Amino acid sequence: MPSDDSFAELLSAIQSNSQRHLDDLVEWLRIPSVSSDSSKVGEVHRAGHWVLEKFQAAGIEARMIETEGHPFVFAQTPAVEGAPVVLVYGHYDVQPAEPLADWITGPFEPTIRDGNLYARGATDDKGQALTHVQSVCEWLASGKSLPLQIKFLIEGEEEVGSANLERLLPELADELACDCVVISDSGQYADGQPAITYGLRGIATYELSVKGPSQDLHSGSFGGAVMNPAIALCKMLSSVVDADGVIQIPGYYDRVQPLAETEREQWKQLPQTDEKFAAGIGVKELFGEKGYTTDERRWARPTFDINGLTSGHQGEGVKTIIPALAGAKLSFRLVPNQDPKELTQQLHDHFTANTPPGVTWTLVEDHVAPGMLANFDTPFVEAANVAIEAAFGARPVLIREGGSIPIVTRFQEVLDCDCLLLGWGLSDDNAHSPNEKFRVTDFHRGIEASARLWHEIAKRAQ
Amino acid sequence: MPSDDSFAELLSAIQSNSQRHLDDLVEWLRIPSVSSDSSKVGEVHRAGHWVLEKFQAAGIEARMIETEGHPFVFAQTPAVEGAPVVLVYGHYDVQPAEPLADWITGPFEPTIRDGNLYARGATDDKGQALTHVQSVCEWLASGKSLPLQIKFLIEGEEEVGSANLERLLPELADELACDCVVISDSGQYADGQPAITYGLRGIATYELSVKGPSQDLHSGSFGGAVMNPAIALCKMLSSVVDADGVIQIPGYYDRVQPLAETEREQWKQLPQTDEKFAAGIGVKELFGEKGYTTDERRWARPTFDINGLTSGHQGEGVKTIIPALAGAKLSFRLVPNQDPKELTQQLHDHFTANTPPGVTWTLVEDHVAPGMLANFDTPFVEAANVAIEAAFGARPVLIREGGSIPIVTRFQEVLDCDCLLLGWGLSDDNAHSPNEKFRVTDFHRGIEASARLWHEIAKRAQ
Repeated sequence: MPSDDSFAELLSAIQSNSQRHLDDLVEWLRIPSVSSDSSKVGEVHRAGHWVLEKFQAAGIEARMIETEGHPFVFAQTPAVEGAPVVLVYGHYDVQPAEPLADWITGPFEPTIRDGNLYARGATDDKGQALTHVQSVCEWLASGKSLPLQIKFLIEGEEEVGSANLERLLPELADELACDCVVISDSGQYADGQPAITYGLRGIATYELSVKGPSQDLHSGSFGGAVMNPAIALCKMLSSVVDADGVIQIPGYYDRVQPLAETEREQWKQLPQTDEKFAAGIGVKELFGEKGYTTDERRWARPTFDINGLTSGHQGEGVKTIIPALAGAKLSFRLVPNQDPKELTQQLHDHFTANTPPGVTWTLVEDHVAPGMLANFDTPFVEAANVAIEAAFGARPVLIREGGSIPIVTRFQEVLDCDCLLLGWGLSDDNAHSPNEKFRVTDFHRGIEASARLWHEIAKRAQ
Repeated sequence: MPSDDSFAELLSAIQSNSQRHLDDLVEWLRIPSVSSDSSKVGEVHRAGHWVLEKFQAAGIEARMIETEGHPFVFAQTPAVEGAPVVLVYGHYDVQPAEPLADWITGPFEPTIRDGNLYARGATDDKGQALTHVQSVCEWLASGKSLPLQIKFLIEGEEEVGSANLERLLPELADELACDCVVISDSGQYADGQPAITYGLRGIATYELSVKGPSQDLHSGSFGGAVMNPAIALCKMLSSVVDADGVIQIPGYYDRVQPLAETEREQWKQLPQTDEKFAAGIGVKELFGEKGYTTDERRWARPTFDINGLTSGHQGEGVKTIIPALAGAKLSFRLVPNQDPKELTQQLHDHFTANTPPGVTWTLVEDHVAPGMLANFDTPFVEAANVAIEAAFGARPVLIREGGSIPIVTRFQEVLDCDCLLLGWGLSDDNAHSPNEKFRVTDFHRGIEASARLWHEIAKRAQ
């Protein structure tokens, strides 16, 4: 445990090395590690090896754990007798960058504009994950021994559902054993208002394919004779949610717990308005399930979205056909207690009951994961409160997040540990969108908060 | 007017030259004259020049008529005192060939299999149009003078709405003046059952674009906060037609005339069953507006089809976004008396009344044309009955067609002429679809029927 003086030296070193930290991130972001793209397998591996070498260069014991898919990077500092063990989880894979034309600068050509670093993966999750890697490297470079053991698991399949990690987690349980998992893959509540996230939504994604005639037909000769699969698809998808944003799948809300009044009260105090939120994403008005505020809807209510539609002629000009096929990619966000496997059956039954005549369809479940609620009355949350307030200049608020980190619930179950979700991002960081960014100051503050966190956690365990 | 003997010689010459007729068609079909594709402008012109040279080589006066778009090919044989004038209309442009992967052989590599010639444009319309070109060339090659004047107008924009022809038709009225327009761009009723078509549906095509947030959003962080444009699109499109296939746009059926009982009775006698029709296009059951037979629905009732859908992520794998945009290409088929311009306003009003909150949209009218009903009690129909029965071995039935030939109503109006729609195709010819074909025997029979037609028309005018 360093004295306060030597800790100040560490913070000063972190400050001095800030350009190098940023250069490292830029280097990592140049690697287009799109895990869903089978033509990018080599790039995904290269991104994993990049962080492996980063650990090894800092003298940290590290290795690749091979899987049937993209490998995990595992690293650990030496065990510290009597001190807690923390596992940092992050991912080196990224979302696809399409639509490419909407990027101001290339998704894999990291560029700084107005204090933000723009690139696919800047905030989700290379930039955020790297804050913890850098903080540990700085601790070790300072010549002082870390006051607790830190393990790292940086995987390459978070954006495609973490299926291999979920499967291999029980085998790896001894190696990954820890008191708390630390994850930075979420956001601050707002600019200047850091947050600790204690809840995540689950996810279930599907591909629905509707089939009509054996091939595209002339809409003149055949229009009126046969069900149009694109119309059938629209009807089936429209039946999922009503005009008030309420999902119509029988049983969908059965396991949904009502929100605690204390949560609703706390969230109503948060400094955000619908007007500002709407302006931030370029819409005139927000929309969602009646009877809930925007934060309630996006953090703690289950939702349905269409992620993509495809059918028939999409190119230039007119082609008057009845398309043979129509398809959609769908995602549901689930709240804790909802069972995604149960949803798959409910959705299948719902579509069966709402199939127009003359078409057939298939529904393929893509990836599913339940939601998560963490205990926030822990020494880890106390430590994070202090570390974040010192680095970001404001005490964090306790929030939930609408996104999913599918593996978190599994960590809780298999490793029997606490969870600390410390997001350094901002809601306009464009995760999963064109022009993804990470504010450079938030990257540096994240490194400082992380360095302080190890100190604060160890202090509370003494 | 040739004697019956010399006419027999002409028919025998047509038979002897059948391979050359087919070789000509193959050559024309090799030219990818996709009029909606701006990268194919040169090919479209090449296809026009191909037929121009065909006329010139036969000694027929012919020239290009330039337009703002693709040019028309105009040709005419000498005027014949006291005999009728016929105008043959056809088109040298073709539909796009996509989806290319579904073609067994390349769309522009004409291939004969099982007695059918496969290529884009084989039946729609190069193959059918060429029957009249060849028949006139054979008349002239036989050394006998044609018993009537035949004019040809072969255009290059039929598949994109014939806007330039529609605009220029009044200027060209003197040059195109005729007693009857002959068009072969439709089909026989069934294999072995030729038909004369006396009605066509109109068409109105649109592009609907729905806009939500200024860019794609993460469906976790934002799902539940904002209307998903793809869901909005599905809701708007679903609102156009109900579960019984009845279109819900207010006023849509106001001008639709009820079908004549005599038509309904005649059509019920036609040798086609729903089971056979469904099997032919690969569906288990047919579907359409309640209360009408399949032929009634596809020939004489107005319909709505989605020709294409596009939104968000359509590639491999999962991308959990709320797409910023969602779009659809739509076509309506109209019956005579419906006004497509009125529909544009009705559709606009309908979407305005059915727009979900939080999205905006634009509706672009693409091309529109009214439907057509022709008089079938004319000497031209009598002549066609005799010519077709002799060439095809069966007396034609009188039918309507569900497709649209936008310019036909304009010919009726501007040229004040009769119309003769003589289709040599079959319903499984895959017009507008992959593996478009034309049966080789029907091509040859079409040439014979055409050659006989000039003879029969002239005979009745004596």
